[in-house]
Amino acid sequence: MGGKDAKISKDAKSSKDAKSSKDATSSGAKGKKKEVKKETGLGLSYKKDDNFGEWYSEVVVNGEMIEYYDISGCYILRPWAMSIWEIMHNFFDAEIKKMNIKNCYFPLFVSSTVLQKEKDHVEGFAPEVAWVTKSGESELEVPIAIRPTSETVMYPYFSKWIRGHRDLPLRLNQWCNVVRWEFSNPTPFIRSREFLWQEGHTAFATKEEADDEVLDILELYRRIYEEFLAVPVIKGKKSEHEKFAGGLYTTTVEAFVPNTGRGVQGATSHCLGQNFAKMFEINFENEKGERAMVWQNSWAYTTRTIGVMIMVHGDDKGLVLPPKVASLQVIVVPVPYKDADTKGIFDACASTVKSLNEAGFRAEADVRDNYSPGWKYSHWEMKGVPLRIEIGPKDLANNTVRAVRRDNSSKNDIPISDLVDQVKVMLDNIQQSLFDAAKQRRDTCIQTVYNWEEFAEALSKKKMILAPWCDEEEVEKDVKTRTKGEMGAAKSLCSPFEQPELPEGTLCFASGKPAKKWTYWGRSY
Amino acid sequence: MGGKDAKISKDAKSSKDAKSSKDATSSGAKGKKKEVKKETGLGLSYKKDDNFGEWYSEVVVNGEMIEYYDISGCYILRPWAMSIWEIMHNFFDAEIKKMNIKNCYFPLFVSSTVLQKEKDHVEGFAPEVAWVTKSGESELEVPIAIRPTSETVMYPYFSKWIRGHRDLPLRLNQWCNVVRWEFSNPTPFIRSREFLWQEGHTAFATKEEADDEVLDILELYRRIYEEFLAVPVIKGKKSEHEKFAGGLYTTTVEAFVPNTGRGVQGATSHCLGQNFAKMFEINFENEKGERAMVWQNSWAYTTRTIGVMIMVHGDDKGLVLPPKVASLQVIVVPVPYKDADTKGIFDACASTVKSLNEAGFRAEADVRDNYSPGWKYSHWEMKGVPLRIEIGPKDLANNTVRAVRRDNSSKNDIPISDLVDQVKVMLDNIQQSLFDAAKQRRDTCIQTVYNWEEFAEALSKKKMILAPWCDEEEVEKDVKTRTKGEMGAAKSLCSPFEQPELPEGTLCFASGKPAKKWTYWGRSY
Repeated sequence: MGGKDAKISKDAKSSKDAKSSKDATSSGAKGKKKEVKKETGLGLSYKKDDNFGEWYSEVVVNGEMIEYYDISGCYILRPWAMSIWEIMHNFFDAEIKKMNIKNCYFPLFVSSTVLQKEKDHVEGFAPEVAWVTKSGESELEVPIAIRPTSETVMYPYFSKWIRGHRDLPLRLNQWCNVVRWEFSNPTPFIRSREFLWQEGHTAFATKEEADDEVLDILELYRRIYEEFLAVPVIKGKKSEHEKFAGGLYTTTVEAFVPNTGRGVQGATSHCLGQNFAKMFEINFENEKGERAMVWQNSWAYTTRTIGVMIMVHGDDKGLVLPPKVASLQVIVVPVPYKDADTKGIFDACASTVKSLNEAGFRAEADVRDNYSPGWKYSHWEMKGVPLRIEIGPKDLANNTVRAVRRDNSSKNDIPISDLVDQVKVMLDNIQQSLFDAAKQRRDTCIQTVYNWEEFAEALSKKKMILAPWCDEEEVEKDVKTRTKGEMGAAKSLCSPFEQPELPEGTLCFASGKPAKKWTYWGRSY
Repeated sequence: MGGKDAKISKDAKSSKDAKSSKDATSSGAKGKKKEVKKETGLGLSYKKDDNFGEWYSEVVVNGEMIEYYDISGCYILRPWAMSIWEIMHNFFDAEIKKMNIKNCYFPLFVSSTVLQKEKDHVEGFAPEVAWVTKSGESELEVPIAIRPTSETVMYPYFSKWIRGHRDLPLRLNQWCNVVRWEFSNPTPFIRSREFLWQEGHTAFATKEEADDEVLDILELYRRIYEEFLAVPVIKGKKSEHEKFAGGLYTTTVEAFVPNTGRGVQGATSHCLGQNFAKMFEINFENEKGERAMVWQNSWAYTTRTIGVMIMVHGDDKGLVLPPKVASLQVIVVPVPYKDADTKGIFDACASTVKSLNEAGFRAEADVRDNYSPGWKYSHWEMKGVPLRIEIGPKDLANNTVRAVRRDNSSKNDIPISDLVDQVKVMLDNIQQSLFDAAKQRRDTCIQTVYNWEEFAEALSKKKMILAPWCDEEEVEKDVKTRTKGEMGAAKSLCSPFEQPELPEGTLCFASGKPAKKWTYWGRSY
């Protein structure tokens, strides 16, 4: 990303800001006023297209999604972000319950013996594991790890619980925090040392059932991105090099951030095959009375989803929230003039909010008397509220309200009598427009290449590159080596399930060997 | 508690059990069969009244609420427990949202500087804090603590966010895990090193608003215990000695476990006063333009709630779940005989479940063909399902079903035509009966005393003791010293808000000084 290289100094800067803003508060009214202006985000210092990294760091704070924390790589999720997480949670949780997947909670801690049981897996995670070695003043007898993911936490118990074919499928999920102590490029939502997620862990008698579930879950992830966050994604399969450590294969929904030309692994649904089953002895007596090993999946999506949404939709005025996930969908602002019927205007605001709430919309009025309407417009634009309704003397006289869309600033005078219906249409439109616009921008970035020269040029132009590939791990490693540089190396993003035709004789863009499939490539978060 | 002294060996035993059960699985069919019988909990080895500690450890496992984990003091919450937590979560979360309290998420980690900012507070928690000192193979520059609670995590940011009176009240809540690395008596749900909770943290302009909220929240906690878990509690105030470290005063809902004669702090709602505000400089400009300090509260309930429910209602057949929190309220069991219309019976089971589900009840049929009806009865009794419906040939012929209550084993033949209404009545009755019976048992344990002799005798009889008290901290310390012993010392539980009359001249049971209030005393978890 643009801000990648500047990220660590950013964290430092931010905590300095926190301090200086505190100082400003204490130093009296003059300093404070200036600070208030900054804090409430009347305008951003950076433009999205000019300095994406700084813009992102500023918009997550000024939009009140995130507060930087005094431990680097950890962030505070403020209510404005948390409510988005909760809306997605409610959707996903209800869907997996329909699939008869049950929630549970396994401990945060895992012993080092268990953590290290699966070799590939632990190699993938070991460098990032945080270790507890002390409690109070005492050293622990053995250090205890904090879960970076829960395969090794859970599977010893899968082994205990699963005995016969009637115990299958075993389908569990948990909503929790995990810790990956990464040292590079902490970025709010996108890459943090602690994050929230759900992690599903399931076991089946047959590979077919496991395969089916992998795709059922992936479809829910697609829906979260496309239907809720209005972010287009590509469904596909990760390469051998990029798949989950210790798993059989990994499917993914890949998003793309046009400003930085980077792919984002949006959420992954893994088939673990029987590898963990072997290590953790998860076997069962099948219907023929024989011992068999289970087939396992694991799948997760994280708070990263929110960061992708911000990067894709945000603009120079601040956040732009899709109506389906916005905790506030409509903000109603009274616009009183000196001679106007102020009470009438405030009453109209209240009854507008009431009608909208009763119809199931999330609406509020901003009736604060110490801010001007103009200030309020900017404030709620910064926070990305999809629709603003203004009510002034003229509107009152005409029995209308003025509705202004956050995404394209278009204005509409709505008769009070038709309020609920028209708001519904407008919110649906905004949701769809955001998706359509994002898809169009994303599609513009997709470029098909056939050889290294075209690939290198497309990469320099920050494209999401579709290329014929021989599907060999050594070749992917070679691509990484050849593209190393300040911006980070390119890697495979996914091989899309929807494969364009691959004419016989097509050669791999990188190795010149016969191509086996089309694969997306690019830099990535 | 009865099992208190045996608790550490219990943990050891349990993980041995896990191991041996695993061995049983691998060693073939014979060993396995024995194991299955034990695993699915046909009967408990211990009786609640004979060996409460062992009974509890067994019932939480055989009822499939808990699995012991290979790190002492950490437990796996299985779906059967998690669904109870979710039902309470849904209630409480909706209630606090009505109060305009918003959810957020603060980091798991806290720097030692911030943790140690409030002296009394850190003294209360320091011995139990778990420290991360390593990531991967690297030592961290400074050790980082895992939150035991989030006052010090959050309040630096309260200080940043609160500037003027319009920023107040600030009312936040988070659902999360916390870690208290205790070394004594780990007990599933009741005392564990990691547990789940909600923690509310709020700031107000005036003490009156803070005081009001303390009680509003306490009332929600009472409702969780009394309306959901059917456990009677006493609302009251903690003594100075027992209040939250660093706070102004602590209110509590106190439950009581008759079998062990121990009080349980059910949930607490604290007024923190201005102590943290002072330490963290949380001040604001009030309406007169003057700087003022905020008044703060914090409040929490934990997964301990579930343990209290199990201890209060469980019996020698297993768990007894109140219908309002049972993830399964009605289990339907087909009772086919050799010559009977088996298909008719299974169809009747399916349509019974369908009717109940459509009416909003949580019902399922157990149609497994490898278990007898009798086995199923025991199995679902162990799991505490409130109502069992049996359908056999006679029921089919009479267009009835037989309903059997878990709490008192009473049987009722219900006409199919009246199924939904009668099930509703029965579930409501069970909920109420459980509460009434628990209250009666609890009330029998309450004993009023006036002097030390009566106090000592009542304590030896495991009573919840109501005594007139001078309300002096030194006297409470003295009571603790004088009652030290194998069973643990007595302490004050709470001074109930509903105070019996205290005639003038009444003396403190312990010091002989003039009494100021009635207070509950006893041993406690």
